[in-house]
Amino acid sequence: MGPTKQTFERRIAKVKDVMADRGIDVLVVPAPANMHYLSGYDGWSFYLDQCLILSLDAPTPLWIGRASDRHAAADSPVIESDDIFVYGDAYLQSDTLHPYEFIAAKIASSGWSRRRIAVPLDDYYFSARALASLRQTLREATIVDDQRLINWVRAIKEPAEIASMQEAGRLAANALRRGAATVRAGNRKADTAAEVLAALAVAGPELTGEYSAIAPLIIDGEGPARPHTTWNDASYQENGATILEIAGVRRRYHCPIARTVGLGTVRQEAADAIAAQSECLRMIEEVTRPGMTCGELAVKCAASLKSHGFVKSGRFGYSTGLAYPPDWGEHTVSVREGEETVICEGMTLFFIPAIWGRDWSAAVGETFCITSAGAERLTDLDYDLIRQ
Amino acid sequence: MGPTKQTFERRIAKVKDVMADRGIDVLVVPAPANMHYLSGYDGWSFYLDQCLILSLDAPTPLWIGRASDRHAAADSPVIESDDIFVYGDAYLQSDTLHPYEFIAAKIASSGWSRRRIAVPLDDYYFSARALASLRQTLREATIVDDQRLINWVRAIKEPAEIASMQEAGRLAANALRRGAATVRAGNRKADTAAEVLAALAVAGPELTGEYSAIAPLIIDGEGPARPHTTWNDASYQENGATILEIAGVRRRYHCPIARTVGLGTVRQEAADAIAAQSECLRMIEEVTRPGMTCGELAVKCAASLKSHGFVKSGRFGYSTGLAYPPDWGEHTVSVREGEETVICEGMTLFFIPAIWGRDWSAAVGETFCITSAGAERLTDLDYDLIRQ
Repeated sequence: MGPTKQTFERRIAKVKDVMADRGIDVLVVPAPANMHYLSGYDGWSFYLDQCLILSLDAPTPLWIGRASDRHAAADSPVIESDDIFVYGDAYLQSDTLHPYEFIAAKIASSGWSRRRIAVPLDDYYFSARALASLRQTLREATIVDDQRLINWVRAIKEPAEIASMQEAGRLAANALRRGAATVRAGNRKADTAAEVLAALAVAGPELTGEYSAIAPLIIDGEGPARPHTTWNDASYQENGATILEIAGVRRRYHCPIARTVGLGTVRQEAADAIAAQSECLRMIEEVTRPGMTCGELAVKCAASLKSHGFVKSGRFGYSTGLAYPPDWGEHTVSVREGEETVICEGMTLFFIPAIWGRDWSAAVGETFCITSAGAERLTDLDYDLIRQ
Repeated sequence: MGPTKQTFERRIAKVKDVMADRGIDVLVVPAPANMHYLSGYDGWSFYLDQCLILSLDAPTPLWIGRASDRHAAADSPVIESDDIFVYGDAYLQSDTLHPYEFIAAKIASSGWSRRRIAVPLDDYYFSARALASLRQTLREATIVDDQRLINWVRAIKEPAEIASMQEAGRLAANALRRGAATVRAGNRKADTAAEVLAALAVAGPELTGEYSAIAPLIIDGEGPARPHTTWNDASYQENGATILEIAGVRRRYHCPIARTVGLGTVRQEAADAIAAQSECLRMIEEVTRPGMTCGELAVKCAASLKSHGFVKSGRFGYSTGLAYPPDWGEHTVSVREGEETVICEGMTLFFIPAIWGRDWSAAVGETFCITSAGAERLTDLDYDLIRQ
């Protein structure tokens, strides 16, 4: 069961409050996670231009997209059938036509051409040409960056969202256990991928999962770090470490985790790094409190690793949850030094204090939900090196 | 084995020829498929800003990305270690810093700040803010749209690319057969997804596959069409049709296919539509010739369907091959009425003359390689309704 109509109405009201605060009249919403959050709209149609248009003077959003997706739009309890507008295939990947010309014309015909319109200037699903098309047609509008408005509203999860992420955590832990069991000399990384992907889709008779915004990462612990590798047909060697970084997904809510699997002899530095990261994650669980800044927590993470002899700067964690490809991160909260964002109850943060080196790498990562008491883990999987 | 250094050098030379023809001095290449095509660079790091910079006055491209991905960049035989430039985590999803400020500064320090610079204005991986950052720093440069320059070079495949797509075709056909066998009353769509995903990763001891740019689509043949649905925990009913649309992937080369699976009684219109689409695909195989325009072929497709009583306009097929999420299409060749693009030998086109309706849907789709003699299928899988 997806969220109810009332849930979407509440979210729309919350987003409109922020719009009103910032003087935004009309919000263009092309990011699939934001479309889903406001309306429940789902489907892989985001590879083509589509969006919701939310205006302060309309109760519910318009949906604009390709004709063949109109029935999926009609499934939303908050998209009225009269508010579904479709463009034809002549607009697809054309040098002469662009879907945002159609979208701009619809904004104009809705009477919003002189309004202050916010768009996501830094999003995969809103191109420079989309912006140019809007500017061309809506010459009297003021077009501004949305500053990830809906992403920031999404940063604080509702209880039902956290419940989905807990189920995603069960999917992730199960798939990681099953995947780790395939890390054996002679098996290929692809064998691990097959097992992990099947387990992420079906955990058992009672629990199924969905596609992840990032494919399973199966990363060599030996040699120069390549943290974003997926899999290939290379076989595992007798000795060494392999990092599995995967997300369980339930109702589009992600729970990413990472663990390191050891075969035969694992170099001491990697074992030490896993111990250090495990302690860092336990420290996060204990010391995190709503009201702390991200920068303060990052300093503690760096100090925790440093006490084990590991120097790490950069980002230790970030907001995760509702996501579509290509990223399970929400592009809002970043736990890094100097960051003044305040950690709040209801945030869900993926921490991965990984060590990526020139000769070896090791990673342990876990997703936490921030509660009034601290940070609560979303899986029950040991942090330790998984010995095969 | 990936392409050799010579292959990348030949591709770079070909791209530079087009740049010179169009008066482009510097090309910014952020799309992962284009980065891969020019350099072999691979990995899921494309969720963050990264790019190659190809200049007419440098033999090989610069690579700019996040620090943790530098070793993966160094794997490329045409990226020199001195040409790898990395930005720190402070640039990630920040309101005050943007990776393209760093990239712009690197373009400037390379002496290219007064050049004519092409960027992809309509790409998932180049945002409106990226463009604004370049414009802000490179005030004396002329920044123009790349008009999908590399995508168009990629439209004509080399023999080794076609060989990878043929292997991808074996992966796709095998996964579709295995997936279809799970479409049974009582099973869930997620069970089919698990089987398909595992089969796409491992076809057997000799053939493994990679992640697809689009997740497996498992689409209800009954009720209003929702062509971009993936899967959920709904069970199959006793009667009706289910559409499987999936891609096998080998060395990042995709072979998408679609077939319809019938359980129990399948409505006559759907069976008729499958017969019509099968004939349309056989017609494409027979009549396609290099030199024909896309528009001419689209007219023939529409006429073929019409002779069976089905009216379809829109896009019948498009270029596919080297791809990363969120699309296995290459955003170049579109087979639709009025399109003047000439079909050439070496193109690889996915045709899916699907009927998406209000009450039912049916789809059959196949990827073809254009040869001097016509269009050659990439799989051996029957087009017929798959009866369970």
